[in-house]
Amino acid sequence: MIDLNADLGEGFGRWTLTDDDALLSVVTSANVACGFHAGDPVVMRRVCDLAAERGVRIGAQVSYRDLAGFGRRAMDVPADELAAEVAYQIGALRVFAEAAGAEVAYVKPHGALYNRTVHDTDQARAVVAGVRLAGGTLPVLGLPGSRLLAAAADAGLTGVPEAFADRAYTPEGTLVPRREPGAVVHDEDAVVRRALAFAVDGTVEAVDGTSVAVAPRSLCVHGDTPGAARIAVRVREALAAAGVEVGAFA
Amino acid sequence: MIDLNADLGEGFGRWTLTDDDALLSVVTSANVACGFHAGDPVVMRRVCDLAAERGVRIGAQVSYRDLAGFGRRAMDVPADELAAEVAYQIGALRVFAEAAGAEVAYVKPHGALYNRTVHDTDQARAVVAGVRLAGGTLPVLGLPGSRLLAAAADAGLTGVPEAFADRAYTPEGTLVPRREPGAVVHDEDAVVRRALAFAVDGTVEAVDGTSVAVAPRSLCVHGDTPGAARIAVRVREALAAAGVEVGAFA
Amino acid sequence: MIDLNADLGEGFGRWTLTDDDALLSVVTSANVACGFHAGDPVVMRRVCDLAAERGVRIGAQVSYRDLAGFGRRAMDVPADELAAEVAYQIGALRVFAEAAGAEVAYVKPHGALYNRTVHDTDQARAVVAGVRLAGGTLPVLGLPGSRLLAAAADAGLTGVPEAFADRAYTPEGTLVPRREPGAVVHDEDAVVRRALAFAVDGTVEAVDGTSVAVAPRSLCVHGDTPGAARIAVRVREALAAAGVEVGAFA
Amino acid sequence: MIDLNADLGEGFGRWTLTDDDALLSVVTSANVACGFHAGDPVVMRRVCDLAAERGVRIGAQVSYRDLAGFGRRAMDVPADELAAEVAYQIGALRVFAEAAGAEVAYVKPHGALYNRTVHDTDQARAVVAGVRLAGGTLPVLGLPGSRLLAAAADAGLTGVPEAFADRAYTPEGTLVPRREPGAVVHDEDAVVRRALAFAVDGTVEAVDGTSVAVAPRSLCVHGDTPGAARIAVRVREALAAAGVEVGAFA
Repeated sequence: MIDLNADLGEGFGRWTLTDDDALLSVVTSANVACGFHAGDPVVMRRVCDLAAERGVRIGAQVSYRDLAGFGRRAMDVPADELAAEVAYQIGALRVFAEAAGAEVAYVKPHGALYNRTVHDTDQARAVVAGVRLAGGTLPVLGLPGSRLLAAAADAGLTGVPEAFADRAYTPEGTLVPRREPGAVVHDEDAVVRRALAFAVDGTVEAVDGTSVAVAPRSLCVHGDTPGAARIAVRVREALAAAGVEVGAFA
Repeated sequence: MIDLNADLGEGFGRWTLTDDDALLSVVTSANVACGFHAGDPVVMRRVCDLAAERGVRIGAQVSYRDLAGFGRRAMDVPADELAAEVAYQIGALRVFAEAAGAEVAYVKPHGALYNRTVHDTDQARAVVAGVRLAGGTLPVLGLPGSRLLAAAADAGLTGVPEAFADRAYTPEGTLVPRREPGAVVHDEDAVVRRALAFAVDGTVEAVDGTSVAVAPRSLCVHGDTPGAARIAVRVREALAAAGVEVGAFA
Repeated sequence: MIDLNADLGEGFGRWTLTDDDALLSVVTSANVACGFHAGDPVVMRRVCDLAAERGVRIGAQVSYRDLAGFGRRAMDVPADELAAEVAYQIGALRVFAEAAGAEVAYVKPHGALYNRTVHDTDQARAVVAGVRLAGGTLPVLGLPGSRLLAAAADAGLTGVPEAFADRAYTPEGTLVPRREPGAVVHDEDAVVRRALAFAVDGTVEAVDGTSVAVAPRSLCVHGDTPGAARIAVRVREALAAAGVEVGAFA
Repeated sequence: MIDLNADLGEGFGRWTLTDDDALLSVVTSANVACGFHAGDPVVMRRVCDLAAERGVRIGAQVSYRDLAGFGRRAMDVPADELAAEVAYQIGALRVFAEAAGAEVAYVKPHGALYNRTVHDTDQARAVVAGVRLAGGTLPVLGLPGSRLLAAAADAGLTGVPEAFADRAYTPEGTLVPRREPGAVVHDEDAVVRRALAFAVDGTVEAVDGTSVAVAPRSLCVHGDTPGAARIAVRVREALAAAGVEVGAFA
């Protein structure tokens, strides 16, 4: 059984980005933007209502405070500030999840914060401190081997390893940085094939052709690319055809 | 028995405004800024921790989204946006109140939103809709006779009437607008006297010298003026000397 | 001779809205967003570069400070603040216009500020004060009969009356408010017909069927609707076929 | 002859920070915040008016876009974005400088951008690209030996080396990072002594007691500490008594 997650609710005010309606018919977990890189209160409410209606799990997609940069610019935020900012975002989203009869069920950092907490222990711990500050024991989605999942484990939280079917991997099992050529897999058939390999075999073909063991509990399908929803549908259908159950992680 | 409330946590990042520490030793209810007109997550956390430690009740001081104008510029926010923005702020603050072992116990609009909801039924109802969206049945602080308290009552919420010891009143029992001369009472002795009149007699002397019936359950002491904490102490001592118990409203 | 203007550069960071490239091939005046309702510095620079390259006149589309509301929520901004905010936006845009070898050649308020300054003398004067604060004697685009054009005239600035080919008009020559049914003309043929009537006859057919005299020096074509560029092309071709020269106002 | 510069106009909306009035009676160059870390349009206008009135030179204190962090959190801003953001800020300030009959005469990065451009060649070049985008050939204030001054020189701009009388120096002539003990000199007499040593001898006593050659053309006096204006006055008087002329750099 594998989870499908996507970044949703990434509009702001007059601007839209993700095809929330279509993606919420496919994914099992919705990473909802909480207002710091995208996602105003009206969008947050609408996405939570729709997710709850369709039984999609709601997660807080927390970010650096950076609307102008869409949370894609790494920031040296001191740990206590970062923890408080993460908690603030979780709390704000919780209101809309609960008003929809659901709950915030996990946390996933967005963009530069996601990338930074792969390697940066201080920021990884600060994110986890923010999750704990927000109460309960929410699972944290992240990259296998990341500082984030290590910090989550240290704090007694469940770390949920995820993989990206449309990203190239190094032989070490890490993501090829976006600035390098070939970092993103654009061929839809290849994306579907790789999703199956992750879910069925627990492997991915790295850029050097070797097969690397990566066994995710969740697959991330991107929501902000053209055709995002169509690719997600194809991935889901291929998983079903291969006998892999798609469902939110426990 | 009467409540003393003050606006607190009105710094933002590098900037400070209110003397939170001193005021939290005097008031019984803290209207904590939630990030839309003031109050970053670090400040919100600190004020909640201190309030909980001292047994001061925590309220969400919700505002228009207007850092540059400190929430003092009325905005024509559509009702659904305003409701969602109010809920967002309550949810964000709730995280810090609950982390401190307390709760968000009431809601009070700030600045221009407070003034607007005295007369504007749509915005008053939107604020109340935001309070209900945030769950529970939080009381709402407002001016006696305001559309806000009426909307709260219509929705089954408790409206808590408050009075301002340092503001001039019209013979009709409404506040003299700030732009008019004499709108603010600067003489400290007069402020103390007026606080006593509200609490003991349920009256205030209007600008024309007549005595008007105003029976608040809470007195607002301003937090952002020089000497704010000192005046608050004097008001509290005078109330005690007159045998008036000071405590958070039920 | 008539001018064609459109709102451009209304993206922000990761978000796009207007089809700047296509519209800059059609219009003669570009109302460039300056960062307060839309338009980050990178977008502003790109639009200015493209406008200068194609000989399109650059105007500052100034707004309330309201990214979350896209400048569509009227705000009670005090006159001195509003004037300074307008000047700030003009100055910021000027850098990119001049770097492109062009200049900021006029000013047009956006959204709620545009609508407010139709009737609100104080804000109209504040916008004009901001234009003058920014130096020179820039023309101001606005609705015929608006307080804005009156304030511009009082200050010795040129007021440029504009008309909207896709908006319904009252028998008094004012716009039917957006919230009323039929306020926006969606039929493309009708939009083209009305553009011709404005430019050739100086009239528009009002909602009651009467013909009203409205003689604009500029026609606004909307940039943020689907098919915006296509409609603009059709309007421009129809004007050419009718022998109306299209060019920026003097 | 030496220049005295200070960061000014670092309030925002309701919040104040720097004692602009007092400092503008002492310094010869005012680094005016441009709205990205502090400084709303009203403050910018007021500071420019006052600076022009008193013959104080106006400089643009440009920053990362980070009000919540007061520009003190380093950000990985791509070069083209950073250049455009710098140009935007210079343009916005220029309006108020010119309205006051003065001009923006130099540029100085603020906070984390200042520190980052000591070592980061890409961001240093981006800041310089922003200065050039804003037109003219404005001098750039920075630390001797910084990537920023090197990038300025490469681009044909004048780099103005500055020193800090209240900061500890390493034997290599660089600043002791703020997070290390003793990084800031709090003793006022020592600050005055060190200012004299910079201006008269071109040296500073490093933390290890050795004398290091540092010959600034400008001394930065901090504006956001209690007693900032008083220390600035003492420094200025001591320089005068030692026969050092205080004046803006050429």
